[in-house]
Amino acid sequence: MKLTLQELAESCGGTLQGDPSLTISGAASLAEATPDEITFYANPRYLAAFRKTRAAAAFVPANFEEQIVVAQILVENPMKAFEQIALHFAPEPIAVATEIHPSAIIAEGVSLGENVSLGPNVVLEPGVQIGDGTRIGANSYIGHETTIGEGVIIYPNVTIRERIKIGHRVILHCGVVIGSDGFGFEDAGGAQKKVPQIGIVQIDDDVEVGAGTTIDRARFGRTWIQEGVKIDNLVQIAHNVVIGKHTIICAQTGIAGSSRIGQRVVIAGQVGIVGHIEVDDDTTIGAQCGVTKSLRGGGAWWSRPPVPLREAKRQVAWVRRLGKLFDRVAALEQREKISPNDPI
Amino acid sequence: MKLTLQELAESCGGTLQGDPSLTISGAASLAEATPDEITFYANPRYLAAFRKTRAAAAFVPANFEEQIVVAQILVENPMKAFEQIALHFAPEPIAVATEIHPSAIIAEGVSLGENVSLGPNVVLEPGVQIGDGTRIGANSYIGHETTIGEGVIIYPNVTIRERIKIGHRVILHCGVVIGSDGFGFEDAGGAQKKVPQIGIVQIDDDVEVGAGTTIDRARFGRTWIQEGVKIDNLVQIAHNVVIGKHTIICAQTGIAGSSRIGQRVVIAGQVGIVGHIEVDDDTTIGAQCGVTKSLRGGGAWWSRPPVPLREAKRQVAWVRRLGKLFDRVAALEQREKISPNDPI
Amino acid sequence: MKLTLQELAESCGGTLQGDPSLTISGAASLAEATPDEITFYANPRYLAAFRKTRAAAAFVPANFEEQIVVAQILVENPMKAFEQIALHFAPEPIAVATEIHPSAIIAEGVSLGENVSLGPNVVLEPGVQIGDGTRIGANSYIGHETTIGEGVIIYPNVTIRERIKIGHRVILHCGVVIGSDGFGFEDAGGAQKKVPQIGIVQIDDDVEVGAGTTIDRARFGRTWIQEGVKIDNLVQIAHNVVIGKHTIICAQTGIAGSSRIGQRVVIAGQVGIVGHIEVDDDTTIGAQCGVTKSLRGGGAWWSRPPVPLREAKRQVAWVRRLGKLFDRVAALEQREKISPNDPI
Repeated sequence: MKLTLQELAESCGGTLQGDPSLTISGAASLAEATPDEITFYANPRYLAAFRKTRAAAAFVPANFEEQIVVAQILVENPMKAFEQIALHFAPEPIAVATEIHPSAIIAEGVSLGENVSLGPNVVLEPGVQIGDGTRIGANSYIGHETTIGEGVIIYPNVTIRERIKIGHRVILHCGVVIGSDGFGFEDAGGAQKKVPQIGIVQIDDDVEVGAGTTIDRARFGRTWIQEGVKIDNLVQIAHNVVIGKHTIICAQTGIAGSSRIGQRVVIAGQVGIVGHIEVDDDTTIGAQCGVTKSLRGGGAWWSRPPVPLREAKRQVAWVRRLGKLFDRVAALEQREKISPNDPI
Repeated sequence: MKLTLQELAESCGGTLQGDPSLTISGAASLAEATPDEITFYANPRYLAAFRKTRAAAAFVPANFEEQIVVAQILVENPMKAFEQIALHFAPEPIAVATEIHPSAIIAEGVSLGENVSLGPNVVLEPGVQIGDGTRIGANSYIGHETTIGEGVIIYPNVTIRERIKIGHRVILHCGVVIGSDGFGFEDAGGAQKKVPQIGIVQIDDDVEVGAGTTIDRARFGRTWIQEGVKIDNLVQIAHNVVIGKHTIICAQTGIAGSSRIGQRVVIAGQVGIVGHIEVDDDTTIGAQCGVTKSLRGGGAWWSRPPVPLREAKRQVAWVRRLGKLFDRVAALEQREKISPNDPI
Repeated sequence: MKLTLQELAESCGGTLQGDPSLTISGAASLAEATPDEITFYANPRYLAAFRKTRAAAAFVPANFEEQIVVAQILVENPMKAFEQIALHFAPEPIAVATEIHPSAIIAEGVSLGENVSLGPNVVLEPGVQIGDGTRIGANSYIGHETTIGEGVIIYPNVTIRERIKIGHRVILHCGVVIGSDGFGFEDAGGAQKKVPQIGIVQIDDDVEVGAGTTIDRARFGRTWIQEGVKIDNLVQIAHNVVIGKHTIICAQTGIAGSSRIGQRVVIAGQVGIVGHIEVDDDTTIGAQCGVTKSLRGGGAWWSRPPVPLREAKRQVAWVRRLGKLFDRVAALEQREKISPNDPI
């Protein structure tokens, strides 16, 4: 398993500065590496940490010129080179047997493809269809007439309600809930009357959904997560929302009912998006932004209500200088011999 | 199943503009409707979408006068008329058998009413009481001595701990956690010592709780969700909080310990409310608001710390014009031949 | 079970003002106490509630001098005295049998310590190790080769993935997810390619994690929650984050990838912390703060981007007075006979 620096440099096509016979037995981050491990340095933000690392060697950018005592392998993409080596040293991936665990509860009228794995206590309700090579983890629940494509990974403790449509190669992490009722009520003389939520959720191919995220079913029609969308943990997607292809949504963001998010949008963490608005393709929305209106024309937005990122940063700078502005106005008033409270 | 426009107009008491013999085979939103379906238009925000719809016909407001090519049924409440027809065309609701699944694990001393349904792998601990007609979904857990009323729906993968009191017709969506320990610690020389959380959670009749929401048990006494409260997904309710009747709480809001929320309050998404404060009846709190003090007298509040909504909007407008204000002060200073850095 | 006021005063070493023979049969909060119960008053915020309480008696601070009609026991720490009595009157704690429930599914190669409890439907994958006296609640899942220390409490419906390391006396509340994949992707021509997440999560001794909280596994190495950390509900901890000893994190906070939080830090609710930054020891971060950069030197921070708390409060005050500042500048301009739109 051990590798020499010579072998490591050759494996990534890098240039070695150091002893080629030195052997390396592991790969770890700057802070965690021990004296027989290799690390990597890619971001100047970590230069101080690099100077303190106990690692034997490091992958560094091809143009790296700082004086650092550890051996270095100069390479175009140090992170990528490191990842390859870390995978080499990593423990074997867990081998999950392809089996239907005897405790799985499979209702009548369920259709299973080939090489499907069902973990302990998995529950499949009547009419469920599962495609080839799909794996469903322990204690997960799949509701009536839900269809799941091929090569899907559903981790333990996932809950999918009835009549949901899930495409191929989708990954659903632990604790995900798909298809709970949308949050809809009508006022009935001070009390709230529940509005039926009879639509579905459709999740297209290659979507990944993070732990604890909730995606509500539509009032009518569908809540629709399109191809290649990646959603982080504890995100809330309300009824009838549409998320365009390849959009990325970071943790704890919430999107209210019927809003439509475009393609290749990047939404940072803890963003809130109100209902019934649209976000155009190729938009970036900063962390904790409060999106109260449609965002048109792409570009980067921040603040609440949202403004273009440049403008948001200017606003922050202005507010920080407000104390001085109050002083300057007071000085002008003093010259004019008026007090701030004079009637205008 | 198909209906003519004539039949559709009669069913809602509307006025038809179009061919009465045209047959309709489904109902869908403006964006999703196909040429043999009916849609609805109720909000001017969607006029452009209406012009592009492929639907055969639409329910529209009684006073609608725009030129649109599709057949129209003018009716007082187009959304309501549409909902009736959508329910007509909807697939049959899933019929859940009233049964105690053989895999359910029922401890000694459990009391079950009539027509109770327990899904696969449901766990009922000793002393649990379940009322008539209540349904508990697969893999849900009900802790010791918890009592649950009649006609309650508990979806799969819900967790309710010991000694919780749940009323009638309550709905708990997938992934809900009721009665976990409140977050309470005492400083013990730099480390934290756990404070016992020996109270309960009481959830009154007709409450609905969204997927993944957590409601902590009280330190002493009870955390209390009163009649008719509706809570969305991923909301956090801390120990000893009281939520008044018919209050609505949108997704990802958090309410810290011992705060008391009044009746008919509307709390938008991602609001944070600190501990030990009160919110009066009939208050509205805007999205992402940071409530740092008691809100008195009802009305609408926003921003952090919260101010009346009108004031919050003025603050936003002022900040946007700050750049010009800096310029105006600089111009005044130039006239006075003073520089911004002159000592005052 | 009943106690006289005399007995209550003696039990806490307090001074009684009232009838020593009066008997008390319970303990409850100011708002909930009935006329045969004792309550407590510790915070002047609740003086009005104290005047309205129906309690028979109250623990009050030693220096309390208000005129209140109920009997009083003056004592240094009224909350603490009350807690002792509330525990006296509380129902017996639930006795959880030390047993391996027959429905628990234990794979080959699992190592169980002495006096381990496994609830119904618990799933232990191959290679799991559980220490003495640890209790795992119903429907919880422990992945391959995960190790769990002694005296750990894992509540129902917890999900722990493979190769996680959990120390002694850790408490994991219902719905917690430990070790789901970090949120990492590479751009691959518009689509996202998943980056392997082959690290682990390490949770040290005496950590408590709240309901529904998610802690992602590291890309490489470990996500590390150090000794004594207390985490509230619905918190998101991303891959490779490090949380220092005895730090407290309140509900719905999110910490992005690779950030390092120091020791004894207090993070209030709904805080967002971006990736790759550091927070020094003994820092306090206010609710909903948006931490966009490293916080150095401890102290209290608030706002977004964060500024020292004092400065943040000043900014709030300035913005509230902005309307008047616009008026004052307009008055100066009027004197100078210039309009706001004059060219400078």
